[in-house]
Amino acid sequence: MTRSGTLIKRVMDEIQARITSRTYLPGTRLPSVRAQARALQLSVSTVVEAYERLAAEGIIVSRPGSGFYIAGPAAPLTLTEIGSKLDREVDPLWVSRQSLETDQTVLKPGCGWLPSTWMYEEGIRRALRAQARGNSLELTEYGSPLGHLPLRQFLSRRMATSGIEAGAEQIMLTESGTQSIDLVCRFFLEPGDTVLVDDPCYFNFHALLKAHRANVVGIPYTPHGPDLGVFEVALREHSPRLYITNSGIHNPTGATLSPVVAHRLLKLVDNSELVIVEDDIFADFENNPAPRLAAFDGLSRVIHIGSFSKTASAAVRCGYITARADWIESLTDLKVATTFGGGRLAAGIILHTLTDSGYRKHMEATRLRLAEQMDKTAARLQKLGIKPWLMPQAGMFLWCRLPEGIDAAAVARACLKEGVVIAPGNAFSQSLSAGDFVRFNVAQSTDERVFSVLAGALSPSPPEFCIASVAPHR
Amino acid sequence: MTRSGTLIKRVMDEIQARITSRTYLPGTRLPSVRAQARALQLSVSTVVEAYERLAAEGIIVSRPGSGFYIAGPAAPLTLTEIGSKLDREVDPLWVSRQSLETDQTVLKPGCGWLPSTWMYEEGIRRALRAQARGNSLELTEYGSPLGHLPLRQFLSRRMATSGIEAGAEQIMLTESGTQSIDLVCRFFLEPGDTVLVDDPCYFNFHALLKAHRANVVGIPYTPHGPDLGVFEVALREHSPRLYITNSGIHNPTGATLSPVVAHRLLKLVDNSELVIVEDDIFADFENNPAPRLAAFDGLSRVIHIGSFSKTASAAVRCGYITARADWIESLTDLKVATTFGGGRLAAGIILHTLTDSGYRKHMEATRLRLAEQMDKTAARLQKLGIKPWLMPQAGMFLWCRLPEGIDAAAVARACLKEGVVIAPGNAFSQSLSAGDFVRFNVAQSTDERVFSVLAGALSPSPPEFCIASVAPHR
Repeated sequence: MTRSGTLIKRVMDEIQARITSRTYLPGTRLPSVRAQARALQLSVSTVVEAYERLAAEGIIVSRPGSGFYIAGPAAPLTLTEIGSKLDREVDPLWVSRQSLETDQTVLKPGCGWLPSTWMYEEGIRRALRAQARGNSLELTEYGSPLGHLPLRQFLSRRMATSGIEAGAEQIMLTESGTQSIDLVCRFFLEPGDTVLVDDPCYFNFHALLKAHRANVVGIPYTPHGPDLGVFEVALREHSPRLYITNSGIHNPTGATLSPVVAHRLLKLVDNSELVIVEDDIFADFENNPAPRLAAFDGLSRVIHIGSFSKTASAAVRCGYITARADWIESLTDLKVATTFGGGRLAAGIILHTLTDSGYRKHMEATRLRLAEQMDKTAARLQKLGIKPWLMPQAGMFLWCRLPEGIDAAAVARACLKEGVVIAPGNAFSQSLSAGDFVRFNVAQSTDERVFSVLAGALSPSPPEFCIASVAPHR
Repeated sequence: MTRSGTLIKRVMDEIQARITSRTYLPGTRLPSVRAQARALQLSVSTVVEAYERLAAEGIIVSRPGSGFYIAGPAAPLTLTEIGSKLDREVDPLWVSRQSLETDQTVLKPGCGWLPSTWMYEEGIRRALRAQARGNSLELTEYGSPLGHLPLRQFLSRRMATSGIEAGAEQIMLTESGTQSIDLVCRFFLEPGDTVLVDDPCYFNFHALLKAHRANVVGIPYTPHGPDLGVFEVALREHSPRLYITNSGIHNPTGATLSPVVAHRLLKLVDNSELVIVEDDIFADFENNPAPRLAAFDGLSRVIHIGSFSKTASAAVRCGYITARADWIESLTDLKVATTFGGGRLAAGIILHTLTDSGYRKHMEATRLRLAEQMDKTAARLQKLGIKPWLMPQAGMFLWCRLPEGIDAAAVARACLKEGVVIAPGNAFSQSLSAGDFVRFNVAQSTDERVFSVLAGALSPSPPEFCIASVAPHR
């Protein structure tokens, strides 16, 4: 092979290796020819030739006016993984997008929120009427950089009840809990930085972290919090930048962080640079408040975030970030640069809703209703041989193991055909070790059809020849 | 010097050079020691030693639990620039944050939106009352991935009137115009990619692109659009990935793209990979619609974005992206990953407001009022020796040159002391060549005090000894 031939081969091999290692997923945009040439310290013509050969082989595709992309059905940042490892039904974004589709005929035991009939609709209606009479600025002007002061003051008082001491100036409002995490990631992460997540964890963390090109490491989650042995090793081996977790009601397992694990975890990270993001989105579902890392730590390395989508309304976008004052200052600059003035109207509506005298009663009723539905759903699932990993103290999620030998992705595929969206375990698992798990939302599992469709998906359908042989006689 | 001494020096010089070239701004987080060692192919201990010496010299600072940062008053992503080149008053984020502060005693001829009393408040109130009676899903559930279909259908019809053909499936709703651009940047840009902007352009583009670590190149803006000669050179020299512009009413100049420049610009980029982002946020202020690049181009390489913050309400967050179907598909995944379900309530309120029979009349009245106020403001400014660069056909902005020898940043400082926020030219200028320009918002310049404070700031105050010598006689 000529020298230039060798070099071209080197570029091709390099790209192939990244596809194999899943650094490049289908739809990933390749670096531009110039950038690649610079990075590999090769000539532009070598890279051009390598790209063109890869394109000829169908490994990458050229999109005019846009560049070269790894071939495959997925577009850039679509998180579809390759072949047998992970299929379309366990793609985290697939679950999100299926759940977000609004067709009301589809049943969604796989989705992560309450049915609209369970939400505090009357409170939202009242809040809207109150805003309609409210002052002009609230209706038409941009929000201030930190966001609606009365709501921040309310949140400050509310957090104090979980032992988190944060002044209103340490709280920045955002458009959602997801945006809160996204801003924190933008502030702290460089591409390639390691982020620890629970395994399993909320599937959208995977999608979000992929967008940040983070190196994601999963820490097995026990009934009392992250596995500290594995955590310690990961801390040493990867020097992670962030750890993202839920302390209250863990998604998807429904587990609760214990005070002992909270203490040991913080002790473990004492000499590291790790920043912990505590996503407290399920706080209002708790019967007995779990310990909060932000309270233990005093907001030194813990950032506490949340939103109101799960209890007040998901249609009204509002979330928050609570952190050290210097971080809040920088996060505010970043928020202004990337979304400009925050949602003043949304903040007003949320404040009105949460301080409405009916909200507390509504949440009490919701917690009772969830507890009841939790028991019912567990019993129904048990009959199908589907066993909860633990019985959560509160919340809407039941993390369940399917009967031996049944693949959750296959069940998800079968259920989808019948109009039932379920959330297969591997969508939540960085290590893809939850292939026989499913997360059920008990509030979305009140329809009997959820269980009949599930039963059908669990029992293998009779082979085709049976049907063929029987049919003529009918 | 020992070999290790030389290597340590090399790292220190490298960082110093980046500070000098303003690649590293105050507050920039340095790569971690490990990452830096990898990048420079040096040992970790060499980098540690270099960082510690730089810290000892006060050039960088260590923040425990967070890493090393370039010293200076600014936090990461705060865009304060260095020393004499650009001071705090011309920091783009400073202008944003000053303008977003809600203290109503401060006058804001420097801000980029209408006073709340000019907004369509009655329409928003009506929309809120209508939503309060609306269906449950609208009030409590997440939006669909693309966003509220009826609003997308409405936008599709509205865009058709400017010659932009886009089906509802080519339109994705976002939380704001700024978020629209941010998502597009996240989708297309790698750190270091070149982005062309108009010089001058909307100052927040600079803040946003800094957050993406783009290499920003300014193209001088003429009264008819970008300077095509400079554009051609930039295209050849930088192979830019994006060009971000306003076609309708250009911010800050108030200029309008001509059909000839639109045609030539698109011809110029024909064989390039450039993607054009057309920010159409001021569309509803136009008396005679300007040509739209998205219409000329047929949404092949042009992405058309906008929001309703300037005309309907800035408190209700809602924007959109219109683009090729394959790009919309990927942008939707990215939106779901980073903000999850969109603002369903906000979309409903905006649709109700825009389709309210009063909106058209309100905008007609607003355009008349703006035209009147434009003339008045220009006349008042002329009296102070402040000359408009051109008289815009429509909109709220007057881009003006100060009298000879007057520095806009100094004027901004002096005005701020008197409670008047003005927007100095260099906040808008990538090349910092607009030091004697100021952008006035004519709708925010109705108070006589704007001009009296400005007059005071323009005329140098009498030297102190004069006052001292005169005072005893009084």
